[in-house]
Amino acid sequence: MPSYMAPNQDIQFVLHEVLKVAQNDTPGYDELDAEFTSAVLEEAGKLASEVLAPLNTVGDTEGCTLENGIVRTPTGFKAAFDKMREGGWTALDCDADYGGQGMPYVLNTAVGELFVSANMAFNMYQGLTHGAYTAIHAHGSDAQKTTYLEKLATCEWTGTMNLTEPHCGTDLGLLRTKAEAQDDGSYKITGQKIFISAGDHDLADNIIHLVLAKAPGGGEGTRGISLFIVPKFMVNDDGSLGDRNAVSVGKIEEKMGIHGNSTCVLDYDGATGYLLGDLHKGMRAMFTMMNEARLGVGLQGYAQAEAAYQNAVAYARDRLQGRDVTGAKNPDGPADPLIVHPDVRRMLLDQKSFVEGARAFTYWGAYLIDEAHRKNDAAALGLVSLLTPVIKGFLTDKGFDATIQAQQVYGGHGYIEEWGMSQFARDARIAMIYEGANGVQALDLVGRKLAQDGGKHVMAFFDLVKSFIKENEGDAALKADFLDPLKAASKDLQTAGMFFMQNGMKDPNAALAGSSDFMHLFGHVCLGLMWARSAKAARAALDAGTGDAAFYETKLLTGRYYMARQLPATRMHLARIESGAEPVMALDADRF
Amino acid sequence: MPSYMAPNQDIQFVLHEVLKVAQNDTPGYDELDAEFTSAVLEEAGKLASEVLAPLNTVGDTEGCTLENGIVRTPTGFKAAFDKMREGGWTALDCDADYGGQGMPYVLNTAVGELFVSANMAFNMYQGLTHGAYTAIHAHGSDAQKTTYLEKLATCEWTGTMNLTEPHCGTDLGLLRTKAEAQDDGSYKITGQKIFISAGDHDLADNIIHLVLAKAPGGGEGTRGISLFIVPKFMVNDDGSLGDRNAVSVGKIEEKMGIHGNSTCVLDYDGATGYLLGDLHKGMRAMFTMMNEARLGVGLQGYAQAEAAYQNAVAYARDRLQGRDVTGAKNPDGPADPLIVHPDVRRMLLDQKSFVEGARAFTYWGAYLIDEAHRKNDAAALGLVSLLTPVIKGFLTDKGFDATIQAQQVYGGHGYIEEWGMSQFARDARIAMIYEGANGVQALDLVGRKLAQDGGKHVMAFFDLVKSFIKENEGDAALKADFLDPLKAASKDLQTAGMFFMQNGMKDPNAALAGSSDFMHLFGHVCLGLMWARSAKAARAALDAGTGDAAFYETKLLTGRYYMARQLPATRMHLARIESGAEPVMALDADRF
Repeated sequence: MPSYMAPNQDIQFVLHEVLKVAQNDTPGYDELDAEFTSAVLEEAGKLASEVLAPLNTVGDTEGCTLENGIVRTPTGFKAAFDKMREGGWTALDCDADYGGQGMPYVLNTAVGELFVSANMAFNMYQGLTHGAYTAIHAHGSDAQKTTYLEKLATCEWTGTMNLTEPHCGTDLGLLRTKAEAQDDGSYKITGQKIFISAGDHDLADNIIHLVLAKAPGGGEGTRGISLFIVPKFMVNDDGSLGDRNAVSVGKIEEKMGIHGNSTCVLDYDGATGYLLGDLHKGMRAMFTMMNEARLGVGLQGYAQAEAAYQNAVAYARDRLQGRDVTGAKNPDGPADPLIVHPDVRRMLLDQKSFVEGARAFTYWGAYLIDEAHRKNDAAALGLVSLLTPVIKGFLTDKGFDATIQAQQVYGGHGYIEEWGMSQFARDARIAMIYEGANGVQALDLVGRKLAQDGGKHVMAFFDLVKSFIKENEGDAALKADFLDPLKAASKDLQTAGMFFMQNGMKDPNAALAGSSDFMHLFGHVCLGLMWARSAKAARAALDAGTGDAAFYETKLLTGRYYMARQLPATRMHLARIESGAEPVMALDADRF
Repeated sequence: MPSYMAPNQDIQFVLHEVLKVAQNDTPGYDELDAEFTSAVLEEAGKLASEVLAPLNTVGDTEGCTLENGIVRTPTGFKAAFDKMREGGWTALDCDADYGGQGMPYVLNTAVGELFVSANMAFNMYQGLTHGAYTAIHAHGSDAQKTTYLEKLATCEWTGTMNLTEPHCGTDLGLLRTKAEAQDDGSYKITGQKIFISAGDHDLADNIIHLVLAKAPGGGEGTRGISLFIVPKFMVNDDGSLGDRNAVSVGKIEEKMGIHGNSTCVLDYDGATGYLLGDLHKGMRAMFTMMNEARLGVGLQGYAQAEAAYQNAVAYARDRLQGRDVTGAKNPDGPADPLIVHPDVRRMLLDQKSFVEGARAFTYWGAYLIDEAHRKNDAAALGLVSLLTPVIKGFLTDKGFDATIQAQQVYGGHGYIEEWGMSQFARDARIAMIYEGANGVQALDLVGRKLAQDGGKHVMAFFDLVKSFIKENEGDAALKADFLDPLKAASKDLQTAGMFFMQNGMKDPNAALAGSSDFMHLFGHVCLGLMWARSAKAARAALDAGTGDAAFYETKLLTGRYYMARQLPATRMHLARIESGAEPVMALDADRF
């Protein structure tokens, strides 16, 4: 069975030496000193390794079951969920007015990584709840906040998001679920929703469904959509639970992975719902929390890769097979460990250099969200809105690839379920699809975010890269190993952006045909930047002679690997982009 | 449920217009006129689509079961297997002296593609049998041939390959299974073998296990290994079946995919075995069939991609979601089909251009094997030995990626098992691992095949590319769209080869650290070459005004896509290779 250890030394490094959170003047960041975050991470790490990780295989093997309308989660999930609730982990960054601890989102993100790495399917129950909490916090009336927020913050109740219907996913304008206004101000909701994560289960007393539906009068397409709160059990005025609402589980989907999470078809049959936010402004309300939700999915991508990587390293050190071509490294044993072989090291370093870069990138995104929300910093909000599709799309594509590489290190054993490597890949696969499939992320990036606010945010990103390079190029080693490759990659990204500007006006397909490559190109530049920042921090620590020198040296070597072996992908993506729309659009649809 | 249609028009194109098989003087090729191969493919295609494909989901869902030592295959497998046997499909390229039809391997490969696309797990039962047939045909005594070959050719009995043990896979020198000589000339085989595909089942009356084991006196490592025939049921002198041999099924492995194939742990407890080939030359005997076996696995890679692609296209045409950014294509419907969207087309064209290129490449490999075997052509044998690790490694890596892309086209539905797209990916995944993991293929390519016979074969390959370019560069359109990109890619490959020569001598890791990138670079050049050859053939047909013009135009557009959007990867692989050993080897094993 695979195991998991919280990578807290690296998390602390990103928080305190790369992002320097405690030196940031964002409200709440003054609490984030190294000692405090270390203590939090240590406790969270214990919960992750000792409670959640051992249930990961259980969840995959048992899955969720539906019997007589009741959904049962896998053995041990309820007890673990209670432990998580009781530890206050579900309310870490929630509003103190509603039972939360008011911690910055960046800390919540770091802690969340541990839980997701340990057991992604399990953690989704609280992840979806957090989304519902955020939506009600942003758009709810005072009464709604009073009724729901504390229960959601503590996960006494959980939440769901209901968007997809059988015939419509990305294109929500097609949705058919209806909302009919009642005399008492409530609505009757009728329709079928699919792919509802944590749609029903036995972990909490009540489930608060957030449901997109069409109420009459809003117009065609997405304009007619409103967002409704539909509780599984009606909530009485005193907060106690009343009758069962008219929402039932049609079935649990059989999925490729995340078996521990109950993905439900939910049938709304005139269920009572309450408008959340403004009528016919449901899309806006839903998308309030999009940056966070998508960042959370990007995190899933690399967090699964982290867990898979840890096990691949252990296997590569343990498994004896073949000899080092330059001379035996384990001469007294029957063979050398796998890790002596260059191609095995390549696979491991691809994973390691991706995961560490992705971690820094994701935490930076969370840091920007904190700046945006806690300081009302419009520039930070613009920048993180630009980066969000990259975090989601690039990190889940690459995260999945990394789990496949980790599985590959195991050879034949990787394909056998009992070794657990298949599960990491199967679980990670969903992150490329949900919360906006990665093609939709690329479309959002190229079709919307690039030009947002007159292209201000992408210019800000390039300035940031340029300034970092300029400020640091006096350091010859940093320049050669990190800044020069970053500069070249950033130039490729700018060239691609120019290509879109020059060609996209007369033919939008010229940009859209390269959108996915652009997202990947952008992702490499972001990871290159984070590696350059990390290298700078590591060199500073080594120069100062503080801390664990081996850690910092490893950091530099891992970063150099990324720059030398991963960044060259930018040239390929640029070449594909520059081939334009024609190769992609030329073939008639009926000739595929 | 997914469906499958045999892509016979494209197969005929490759056989007759690219490879021009009927014009080749290899013995047996004179039979391969277009009418004959068309008739064979049509029949095989019916069996594939109507009998095998519908069982693909069944096999995945039911899997194989072990009860009281008896392995049961999924519902319908036995009847389908009988149909396949009765149609003579299992003996297509087997020796006419032993019940076969003596057809060239290239035809067997084309037919095999259909069966593998339709149901990979099912087809493995006969695939492994074919391997056992080939080994006994090459190394068996006359008596062994008489006893086993016809039964194996007709799949009245099936075969297995027993290499792996719990502690040893790639490094067979470590194996522990023992063979003790008996007075009657037989051996007692004792040990445990794992990952034995088709290890036990209810499809045939007997199973002939080929088992690698160590008999005393052969020396250390792989030198002590011999190959043994171990029948499940003893075979009496008259060919009837006798007692059960001392080999039993320890368990059936729970795997990520190919559930329809029984992957067994086999326990040999003093089982009676018969030496096949020479004592202590077991590795040589086993590797006789390596080119074919690895080509067959490469085929699995793209054949799964073909099946997944067909379904992705159907879904992309059918599913209405969003609008074409340049104007509605389905204005009377609620939305346009997915296939209008550039990024969806990109995914589909990545798959299509890969699959068609891979098909041509694989058939060319089979064609070279025919030349090698039927004409004793050492140059063809040398060339196909060079290309085999590329066919196996590149096509299975890329084939798996293509199944993931096909799944991605389905959005959320791709993750739900009932749509079948997950199975294509899960099944394709094994092909990257077995028959030598892809890292081992890369090692074989760079560490062995490049330098084989003084580097003669790789030089022959480059000459072949160069000649093709030279002969055809008078055609301006072919030159711009195909030959120039091929020339650039081929130059990258040569530069990489030079880098290995210059640096590999003083540090073998300089070559090995780039081995996997080299295999991919090589693969792109091979597919580029096959696309250039295909484009030439398509243009010739269009110029002649013969045949289906739409097919040839589609071929050209698909090929141009590959050259424009896939070949730029060679530059990236070269850059990684040129970064050398240092980034890969610098980190100590205990710092990962």
